[in-house]
Amino acid sequence: MHTTTMLEQYPAEITMDRELLARAIDAAVACSQACTACADACLSEPDVAQTTRCIRDDLDCADVCATTSRVLSRHTGYDARLTRAVVQACIQACGTCADSCGEHRDHHPHCATCEQACRDCAAACKALLAQLVPEGDGGGSPQAAAPQG
Amino acid sequence: MHTTTMLEQYPAEITMDRELLARAIDAAVACSQACTACADACLSEPDVAQTTRCIRDDLDCADVCATTSRVLSRHTGYDARLTRAVVQACIQACGTCADSCGEHRDHHPHCATCEQACRDCAAACKALLAQLVPEGDGGGSPQAAAPQG
Amino acid sequence: MHTTTMLEQYPAEITMDRELLARAIDAAVACSQACTACADACLSEPDVAQTTRCIRDDLDCADVCATTSRVLSRHTGYDARLTRAVVQACIQACGTCADSCGEHRDHHPHCATCEQACRDCAAACKALLAQLVPEGDGGGSPQAAAPQG
Amino acid sequence: MHTTTMLEQYPAEITMDRELLARAIDAAVACSQACTACADACLSEPDVAQTTRCIRDDLDCADVCATTSRVLSRHTGYDARLTRAVVQACIQACGTCADSCGEHRDHHPHCATCEQACRDCAAACKALLAQLVPEGDGGGSPQAAAPQG
Repeated sequence: MHTTTMLEQYPAEITMDRELLARAIDAAVACSQACTACADACLSEPDVAQTTRCIRDDLDCADVCATTSRVLSRHTGYDARLTRAVVQACIQACGTCADSCGEHRDHHPHCATCEQACRDCAAACKALLAQLVPEGDGGGSPQAAAPQG
Repeated sequence: MHTTTMLEQYPAEITMDRELLARAIDAAVACSQACTACADACLSEPDVAQTTRCIRDDLDCADVCATTSRVLSRHTGYDARLTRAVVQACIQACGTCADSCGEHRDHHPHCATCEQACRDCAAACKALLAQLVPEGDGGGSPQAAAPQG
Repeated sequence: MHTTTMLEQYPAEITMDRELLARAIDAAVACSQACTACADACLSEPDVAQTTRCIRDDLDCADVCATTSRVLSRHTGYDARLTRAVVQACIQACGTCADSCGEHRDHHPHCATCEQACRDCAAACKALLAQLVPEGDGGGSPQAAAPQG
Repeated sequence: MHTTTMLEQYPAEITMDRELLARAIDAAVACSQACTACADACLSEPDVAQTTRCIRDDLDCADVCATTSRVLSRHTGYDARLTRAVVQACIQACGTCADSCGEHRDHHPHCATCEQACRDCAAACKALLAQLVPEGDGGGSPQAAAPQG
């Protein structure tokens, strides 16, 4: 991954903590791949009929994490309300998927790996969320600080 | 779009209102395409340096709407908390992008079209959100109602 | 969908036939949604263990069609080689998925709908491909005709 | 990234070389992120009007690489024709984007990083493509080897 290098070479100010940002992007990217692979692995299991909810949660989580990594990679932070809403959706998707995968972790090693990827991503997103500006202040000031153009 | 037909042919129960669901999916799909095209059109404008924020908001909104349409197309409603978080992020992305496009609507017709697509999608998502179970009840009961497998 | 309007409001030249382009974009968008919904519907079928290949082909086709609709929505045609390669991948994904869905069309109505969406998208992509510049000429001239900037 | 672990824990046969497959997935994921970040960085450059083609190529490459990483993460190899078509599109997208970024590498460090990510991804995809079954044999035999279900 070139995430940290790209952040260092960014030609404008970044209003978020770069280390927390890089961790969240990398965790979301890794989680999205793990969820895509876990869904496919579940489809190859003899007990696939018992894993349909896990597959759906994998697919949702893969999509939400992919979008989160993209929104965060446009790390301009113009509108903290959007960053916050996307990161919150990612935390929810990862929590839901980790719980589903966790039910299969003992007999499906790939579910154990995917559960860990989800929990890591949720933790990285929570750490990033904690240092974003508080909800009451979030919408206006970053927009004001970043005039159109 | 085959959204309504696919919903009618769905072999299991859908816990959400099918008409509101179909409208939200179609609006998110249309908005995602309009935002992708608007970003590209802005890049072809002579005043591209004045539209960089609009381009970014277009790209964020395109990604968030695409993921929203996918999560809603897996209309199983297992976990209302995830549906709600994703739809809320979509409403925010559409609102942010509509405001950005709105600043250019008078001299960029494609921004006027995209603003409308964003406002339509936000409205469809709000209508869907309003009939989802309330936040306090949301997480537990749909999961309980949909046992693993 | 706002595809045709956005094409009419595009501020630069478009080197492809706009009607064929709009049809291909709309067909790819509709197919991507149908495939996502079909995969989810298959997961709800009692015979899910017999539809795992259909689900995978649905998921691949949904992703390839989504990317195709985005690349075509950036309808600048700078590099005809990329457009051609992406459209060819889309035709292949749709053909593969249509064949898989076709095997289930008699007992899964959603597979019949999805098969049709795939065949429509493949046809729209083939019509667009046929009017792109021939392979031998394609790479160089569009790039030469579109100087950097 | 958990790519290699997920491949090791896959419960079915994988017809492709696992090491080449993991490298291609990881390179595509890294390239997609770099392209997304490079497009955003270009939008923050004072000479944005001279980088519009680079931004478009970044966006196309980000989408194609994301889809490639997903199709390869469903590493079932049912239909080698689809894998081949997607990997070929990825090689083309990476080549086009690397050339565009290369024109800016001297004054935009992020373009130099992105160019390298594109060239690495193209190389990993070419190595994978070289060991896929030849075009004439590709369609039939993998399908025959993977009966429905």
